[in-house]
Amino acid sequence: MSSTVGQVIRCRAAVAWEAGKPLVMEEVEVAPPQANEVRVKILFTSLCHTDVYFWEAKGQNPLFPRIYGHEAGGIVESVGEGVTDLKPGDHVLPVFTGECKECAHCKSEESNMCDLLRINTDRGVMLNDGKSRFSINGKPIYHFVGTSTFSEYTVIHVGCLAKINPLAPLDKVCVLSCGISTGLGATLNVAKPAKGSTVAVFGLGAVGLAAAEGARIAGASRIIGVDLNSNRFEEAKKFGATEFVNPKDYNKPIQEVIAEMTNGGVDRSVECTGHIDAMISAFECVHDGWGVAVLVGVPHKDAVFKTHPMNLLNERTLKGTFFGNYKPRSDLPSVVEKYMSKELEVEKFITHTVPFSEINKAFEYMLRGEGLRCIIRMEE
Amino acid sequence: MSSTVGQVIRCRAAVAWEAGKPLVMEEVEVAPPQANEVRVKILFTSLCHTDVYFWEAKGQNPLFPRIYGHEAGGIVESVGEGVTDLKPGDHVLPVFTGECKECAHCKSEESNMCDLLRINTDRGVMLNDGKSRFSINGKPIYHFVGTSTFSEYTVIHVGCLAKINPLAPLDKVCVLSCGISTGLGATLNVAKPAKGSTVAVFGLGAVGLAAAEGARIAGASRIIGVDLNSNRFEEAKKFGATEFVNPKDYNKPIQEVIAEMTNGGVDRSVECTGHIDAMISAFECVHDGWGVAVLVGVPHKDAVFKTHPMNLLNERTLKGTFFGNYKPRSDLPSVVEKYMSKELEVEKFITHTVPFSEINKAFEYMLRGEGLRCIIRMEE
Repeated sequence: MSSTVGQVIRCRAAVAWEAGKPLVMEEVEVAPPQANEVRVKILFTSLCHTDVYFWEAKGQNPLFPRIYGHEAGGIVESVGEGVTDLKPGDHVLPVFTGECKECAHCKSEESNMCDLLRINTDRGVMLNDGKSRFSINGKPIYHFVGTSTFSEYTVIHVGCLAKINPLAPLDKVCVLSCGISTGLGATLNVAKPAKGSTVAVFGLGAVGLAAAEGARIAGASRIIGVDLNSNRFEEAKKFGATEFVNPKDYNKPIQEVIAEMTNGGVDRSVECTGHIDAMISAFECVHDGWGVAVLVGVPHKDAVFKTHPMNLLNERTLKGTFFGNYKPRSDLPSVVEKYMSKELEVEKFITHTVPFSEINKAFEYMLRGEGLRCIIRMEE
Repeated sequence: MSSTVGQVIRCRAAVAWEAGKPLVMEEVEVAPPQANEVRVKILFTSLCHTDVYFWEAKGQNPLFPRIYGHEAGGIVESVGEGVTDLKPGDHVLPVFTGECKECAHCKSEESNMCDLLRINTDRGVMLNDGKSRFSINGKPIYHFVGTSTFSEYTVIHVGCLAKINPLAPLDKVCVLSCGISTGLGATLNVAKPAKGSTVAVFGLGAVGLAAAEGARIAGASRIIGVDLNSNRFEEAKKFGATEFVNPKDYNKPIQEVIAEMTNGGVDRSVECTGHIDAMISAFECVHDGWGVAVLVGVPHKDAVFKTHPMNLLNERTLKGTFFGNYKPRSDLPSVVEKYMSKELEVEKFITHTVPFSEINKAFEYMLRGEGLRCIIRMEE
């Protein structure tokens, strides 16, 4: 048993002191896990748009100082009271949303929106006592979505940790704990394209490319990438995209362009931008009779989805998904296995790597729209 | 073989000469069926809102003189060239939409929106030669949705006829050729409520009550009827409805009322009014994580469906259906069997019966909102 069990651990963490200001490497105290909590040694973390979005804090309630980070892979250091599913040494992926296994959502085969542990971006403390496990000289530092992986050690509710195959390389599969699984699951679990079908993917960032990867795995015959930035098209070919449309190149709604390309519409579409116009286009570009559109991107709070109801009555389906409909604990291990069996290719999502001390570079890459995923190595 | 084969048949038909004016019983000539057509002796027909809607011709292209009628049961009198699926004496239900068995929709397991024979309310002639099979003294009388069952004999494309069990009483199962199957299929084929689930049905006319009947057959534990007319609630109990809400009784959106009644929303909802506000409520009243809303009612042409996209992203599904997703030829015979096995109760939909000569009474009942289905007996 590690000598740190039950002790406060002092370690490095990248602390966001103010909205939009570079993170500062600090020595923080990480308290031991309480009931149903697990303390995890993070080995690799990556940066996702959601971190940047809440770090910029434009429009949300600012909550600072805070430790961001939610895409990661690590090893259990110690467990709190009542934790039986995990033990020290287990390899885990922290997840920004959880699975209590007790609520109506967890008991439903269809939902992954756990009542207890569903993503909460406003909460900066642990559920057990309403307090933070992070502090600097006794002053609390807030958590982020229950994960806070920009720290060498972090404390996470057991319901937000997926126990994975210890043979899986954490520097690769860490990206499966958020964006990649979100896009992949949107296609494989929700859109469910049949082999040989046509799929349109709106938005060719990491999530959209993961959606395309899902269509490739499903055996789609045509994967049409849609993006306002034509520079993304070349990259998208690696993820199975066969054709590209840039709405800027046309004088008519892109749903009409896609319907003309596909004899009436695609079989499935997946929307990964969060822009309301793209959502409407993604719905209206699917074929009548059987088309299914899946919304993934998170919209502006004032956005309104509008369509003529005949588009629905002509037997189109519109659905939304959250984290690709994966239940974090039950389903994520199988996504890791897809990588292990070489069905899912993860390496192509990883375009940059930086040591922890240079974490602000990862922010710069993302703000410049450069690359897909930047892995941050906690050990220099 | 009948002596009428290959001959023009002279018989009675109820002709609509002008929009909104009582039908006039006339002697019409019914030409023999051409290629892929079937001439059917109608024994029973019933009146559906769609007949009344196009007879009133408020807002559509008026097409007169015309023979309405599309819910019916009859017996094949003769078949045209190339018809191999049906022979004289077969019992059939005419359907307002068809199944060619050749197009992409017919070949898809998911669609029933046949490219060739999909409902067309503007066409008043047969596909084969673009002409009518009905005439009075040589002057053509238009068909309606390919069925025109308000005539003792009619000519119908073979793709719009379901061959049914000859033991099924046509005076009962004739109502399965349109509205009842539409509502029933919306629930059983599209909403697919699990046993023990909660279902809201918007609109308690014949289609909505058939949707409730579907929920009853599926074993729903709570069936919440929603209607602006509380007089319909008593009747709805016969169709399995367990609770009722009248939006007029509340000062808040009915979706909020239903969510409060059901701990967050119903598992499934079926919208059968066609009013846009009811469509939006039907969608927003389903539970996040797993709720499915199915739209059945046909909206006003200028209607716009609006909702906040987060309602979708929280894992709700919105779908529309046409004719309950039943393929007319492939699936309707099994609906008749549901009646034969006493799983489906049809008698309770039949509230009136009139002889053919009094067909205008059926219109009066419907215009007064009296009863559900009025059977018109062709033989007095």
